[in-house]
Formats: sequence, structure tokens, C-alpha cells
Amino acid sequence: MKFTIKNSFFTEIVSELYKISSTKSLLPILSGIKIEATKDSVVLTGGNSEVFIEKKIPRQINGEAVIEIYETGSVVVLSKHFINLLKKLPDDIEISSDGIQLVLIKSGDIVTKMNGIAAVDYPKLPEVKILQTVTLNFTSLKEVIKQVVFAVSKSEAKPVLTGVKMEFVKNKLICTATDSHRLSRKETQITFNERDHSVIVPSKSLLELLQLKESGSATIQISIANNLIVFSTENTILYSVLIEGNYPNTQSLIPTDFVTKITMNTQSLIAGIDRACVFSEEWKHNNVHFTLIENTVLKITTKSAGIGMIEEQQRISKVDGVPVIDMTFDGRLFLDALKGIQEEQVTISFCGVMKPAVIRPETETSYVQLISPLRT
Amino acid sequence: MKFTIKNSFFTEIVSELYKISSTKSLLPILSGIKIEATKDSVVLTGGNSEVFIEKKIPRQINGEAVIEIYETGSVVVLSKHFINLLKKLPDDIEISSDGIQLVLIKSGDIVTKMNGIAAVDYPKLPEVKILQTVTLNFTSLKEVIKQVVFAVSKSEAKPVLTGVKMEFVKNKLICTATDSHRLSRKETQITFNERDHSVIVPSKSLLELLQLKESGSATIQISIANNLIVFSTENTILYSVLIEGNYPNTQSLIPTDFVTKITMNTQSLIAGIDRACVFSEEWKHNNVHFTLIENTVLKITTKSAGIGMIEEQQRISKVDGVPVIDMTFDGRLFLDALKGIQEEQVTISFCGVMKPAVIRPETETSYVQLISPLRT
Repeated sequence: MKFTIKNSFFTEIVSELYKISSTKSLLPILSGIKIEATKDSVVLTGGNSEVFIEKKIPRQINGEAVIEIYETGSVVVLSKHFINLLKKLPDDIEISSDGIQLVLIKSGDIVTKMNGIAAVDYPKLPEVKILQTVTLNFTSLKEVIKQVVFAVSKSEAKPVLTGVKMEFVKNKLICTATDSHRLSRKETQITFNERDHSVIVPSKSLLELLQLKESGSATIQISIANNLIVFSTENTILYSVLIEGNYPNTQSLIPTDFVTKITMNTQSLIAGIDRACVFSEEWKHNNVHFTLIENTVLKITTKSAGIGMIEEQQRISKVDGVPVIDMTFDGRLFLDALKGIQEEQVTISFCGVMKPAVIRPETETSYVQLISPLRT
Repeated sequence: MKFTIKNSFFTEIVSELYKISSTKSLLPILSGIKIEATKDSVVLTGGNSEVFIEKKIPRQINGEAVIEIYETGSVVVLSKHFINLLKKLPDDIEISSDGIQLVLIKSGDIVTKMNGIAAVDYPKLPEVKILQTVTLNFTSLKEVIKQVVFAVSKSEAKPVLTGVKMEFVKNKLICTATDSHRLSRKETQITFNERDHSVIVPSKSLLELLQLKESGSATIQISIANNLIVFSTENTILYSVLIEGNYPNTQSLIPTDFVTKITMNTQSLIAGIDRACVFSEEWKHNNVHFTLIENTVLKITTKSAGIGMIEEQQRISKVDGVPVIDMTFDGRLFLDALKGIQEEQVTISFCGVMKPAVIRPETETSYVQLISPLRT
């Protein structure tokens, strides 16, 4: 194997793969990056036990030569030292290998030899038997993932809840995440006419997907295989395992009735709850209290014996139903939910004592979130 | 106490003081910031057991009104929650206090009450009896401190070595730091005609001094008292304790003879040693080896059984003395030393096996550094 490449460009890709490579794996080779030079591209692979990313560097990008390949072949390098070195080398570098154990990296008068591992020892990706394939805009998919993924469970007690449920039904992708205290659900229009399919994707894999850099107009193809989900863009393929198990039926949890419904400015409410959280540090759940005053003002209050208290009033645009609110929520969960709302105005429906509140953008109906109140 | 202030400006100053306030002190009040409103300024004080900083906010800065004082008084607030809150408040804020325990912070419809502590309980600064005073340019002083402070000992085994020795002798300030493996010494011309004076200032206090923001032309006054050193600029006073004890005589350590002396580009050498250090991670001392080749080239080599090896060649501008170098140094210490060199070319004098190397800027004679070689 032997090729030359612009280091600035190469370092960026190796960094991306370094971030997902295992640092604490029983298989030391998993902390490495596989470099494979073929006739017309260099392919880099990195991953951990749940997700693998394959990055293809073509000979040319936008008509400009990026790599020059002199000899095909492959090798695995330990990513940590490799990236540390690359960051400190000038722009023109030559990478070569005898294919077994040594990687030679040259740049002008700088000669380095890094210990490598033979590429044959790198784990093989499983044979993938594609069941369904959907193509959509990558930026839109990223938005959808951001709007739900934060709500997954951080505890491994119920593994299915650590993933996002992705349902492909007729012309619709429905993503749902819940940790049983809160829920986030988003429907997106897609072109899909095949048999319904539903999978649970680990949140870690989706967070890696969010990190991938692609232009705004790029499309992404989602393929569902027997035990894998594969996301592919022009030069990148992300393989992720699926979580097995039964996801709870969440549709029935969403209240259809409300007692009090208010609409108000999203950003002001975020700022207000964020301030209130400064005073809720000593509570286990960041208790923030909401009270409705005279139909027009929401009072946000937090009290802490140790720190002090904050109280602020925010104007409400609209109130429907019974004009009484007197409830406590976890301020941090409320903030997470509000950050998913892209509209200027947010609608919050309070559905009665100890029932979850429903948070939605004022006009969009495809996005809904639930938060359970706190007992005080 | 009651005053109004632009929050953006106030937050910046409170942040500076928050950083030095004790977080783990037996006296909880030391994790607080004292706020004192006088007739014509607000003075904020924060500190820890070694250093105190007093910041004066005058009514006007550059002709623009900054604060409006309605009532004098003082109080202490716990800095962590205070700064967290300030960062989240709009720009116009009003701070008031009953002087005993509560601090009221208002901004529009936001009302907060933070628990405070009566200012009488805040530690008093000792009565300072000034022995000597020197005035110099603040930016120059910062440069001098940066050039020596990194060489102090990180171990508390010999407390005097954790400080920088500052000697005020006739029209000269000499700063020295050493951890017994390396030494850095810088002389600066000052206007000083009084009795010689020498103090050891804790490196932590000098690092705080480097953080102070002042304009490039600002002057700083250094006052030495019986057991304190006081640095004062127009609106800031930093009080630091001194380290008691006898500083070793370091002047005699600086070799006057050399075996081989080379001059070369400072930045290239920094980049080369930095690269070599990637491969020296598994060594206790970042072993980097220097060899002279044919009088014109310095070869920098590092070998590691686990990672690999790097070898690079750098052109030397000038060689004096015996044209043989074959020595190993701690690459990290060498990098620290070179980073203090502001000239394009650096001169390194090798003084024989197991004797320290002397590193100097090519032309400036007031700055000298020593590094002991490693046994290999």
C-alpha cells in the first residue's frame, strides 16, 4: 500500500473515526483505524462494538486531486498516536505499508514508522441482507433525530428505552424516544410504499450519525437488514446494530383532552426556566413551579433553602380551558423539550394533576412531547 | 446597599473573581465574593488563602456611566450561584442588600433573592507596611513572568521552588524559577534605586496576575511589604503572600563554557520536538534524542517499542566548538523552554556529558534557561 494525500483533509477524516473508535475494548484492534487503498479510492474504517463507519476518499473531489495511489493494500493503525502525529505534520504526506505491521508516514525530512496491525485481523462487517430501503434528505433526518434522541433513557435498566424507535409505515417515518418520565415523538413524510417496518436504533449510533459532516442538500439512504441498520451517503456508510426487544406502546400515553392550554414565546420560556434552574440545584429533580396569574401571566418560581429564590413573570399569548395552573416540573426536562421546538410560539397543555403535560409547536402537529409533573 | 449596573460588564468582573475564589476552604465565606458600594465606586473582592484580588468599578469608565449608586453598604455572596445567575440575566440589573444576609437581584420582571453573608465576617486584609515600590509596564511584566513561571517545581517537597524568586537590585528586576531539572532566569531594566530586596512569590499568584485584563499601556505598581507583595493597576489590586525560606543560589549553576554551540530556527525546532514527543509517551521523561550530522543538520529521534519511531532532520544556521552532539533530553521540558524564546533563532550550548544545556535567544543576553540531560 502506498499513497500520497493532503494531510489537512486526511486528518479531518481520521479525527472523525478516532472519536468513535473503542478506547476500552477487549480487542485492541478496535482502537485502530483500518486504511485500505484500492485502485480508485482510499477507504478508512473505524468503530466500536455497536457502530462502524466507513469513509471513502475518492481520487478527486470537485475536480481537484486529493489522493495519488501508487500501490493498493491495507493496514490497521492505532488511532490515538496516529491522529496525534498527523496533527503535527505538514500538509503533504505519503503513507505506505508492507501490509503486515509497519506504517511508514513521510513528510519532507520527517520519517516516521508506526506499529500497525495486519488488516486481515480487523473485524469483518457482517453480510448484510437488505430488507427495506428509504432515501431522504440528510439535513431533515438530522433535525428529526435531534428532536427525539435526547429523550431516551440514560439507564440501561430497560435496554429498549436507550434507543429510538423508528417506524417506517406508509409514506411516514415515526421516531419515538422515552425514558418513562418524558416522551418525544416526531412524524416525517417520506416516500415509502413497502411493508411496514419498525426497529429500535441505539441512541449512541444516532448521535454518531449527527456528527457526520455532509452538505445540506446531501441525501441519505437508510437500509434495514435483519439485525442491522445502514445509513449511507455518497462517501460514508454508518453500520449500527439494532436493539432487540419489544418497545412499549406509547401512542396510548398521549392525552387527547386538556384542562388548561397556554401558548407563549418559546425562547423567553427557555430563558426563564434556565434561570430558575440555577436555584433548583439542591433538588433531585430541578423543581420549577408554574402558576397562572390573572389569565395573562405565567409565574415561574424556584425556592431553595440553601441558595435563595427566583420568581419571574412571563406574558402568555393565549389561554384555553380552565385558567388555573399550579404544578411543578423538572426544569431540566422541560428545557430539553423546549429546545426541540423550532417555532416562535409553543403550546403547553396541562391535563390535570399528576397527568403529563403535552408540549407542541403552536401550529405543527407532527411533533409532540410529554413530561410528567413532579409530586411536591 | 443598592446600585444598578450593566450586567455584561459586571459578569466579566465577577467571573474573574469567581475563578480565584476558594472552592474547598474550611471557611465557606472564602468561596464568596465581597461586594462593597461606596460613595463613588463598587469594590468587589475575592480570593483564597494565598491571593486576594480587589476590583474597583468606578461610576464612569471612558466618560460612560457604568454604575448608579443609590445606597452604600456591603455584603458577601456565594460566587458559584451568583455567577451562574448573572450569566442568565438581561443587561440592566439592580443589586441591593439589607447588609446582613439577603442579596436582591432584580432585572425587569425577574426578582431573585440570594442568601448572602454579612460582610463583617469576610477576612480582613492584613495591614500592609510598604517597604519598597516599583512601577513598570504591565505588559512587559507579564512577558517576564511568562518566560520564567513555567519552570517552578510542581512538587511541594521544597516549597521555595514552587515560587518565582524576584530580586530587585539597582535598576534591575531579576526573576528566577527552577525545579532542579531546569531553570529559567530573566533580567529586566527597571527604575529602582533603593535598597536591594528579594522575595519568593507563589507561582499561583503570578498565574492569577497573568489573567488580569488591562490595556497594553497600563502601568503596574509592585509594592513589597513585610510578608506580602502587592500588585496594583488603576482599578485592580492583587495581594499575594510570600514564600518564606532560602532560595538556592542559582547563579553559580549557569555554565560559562560550552563544548558545542548551535544556532537554529526556534519555531521549526519546537514543531520537530513536538512531533517527536508523540512517540515518547511511554517514556517517563519524554526522551528525545539529538544528534549532529555533518556540521549542518540536527537529527531529532524518538523510538518507542510500543508506538514506533520518528526521525527528522533540521538545518542548523551555525555551529561553534566541537561538532559532535549525542544527547537525550526531556522533550516536554525542552518545548517549555523554547516557547519562552521570542527571537527567530535560538542558541543552544551543550556543555558536556551530564551537564545542563543552556538555551538562549540568539542575540538577547538577559534571558537564559538550563535543562539537564537524561541518562540513557
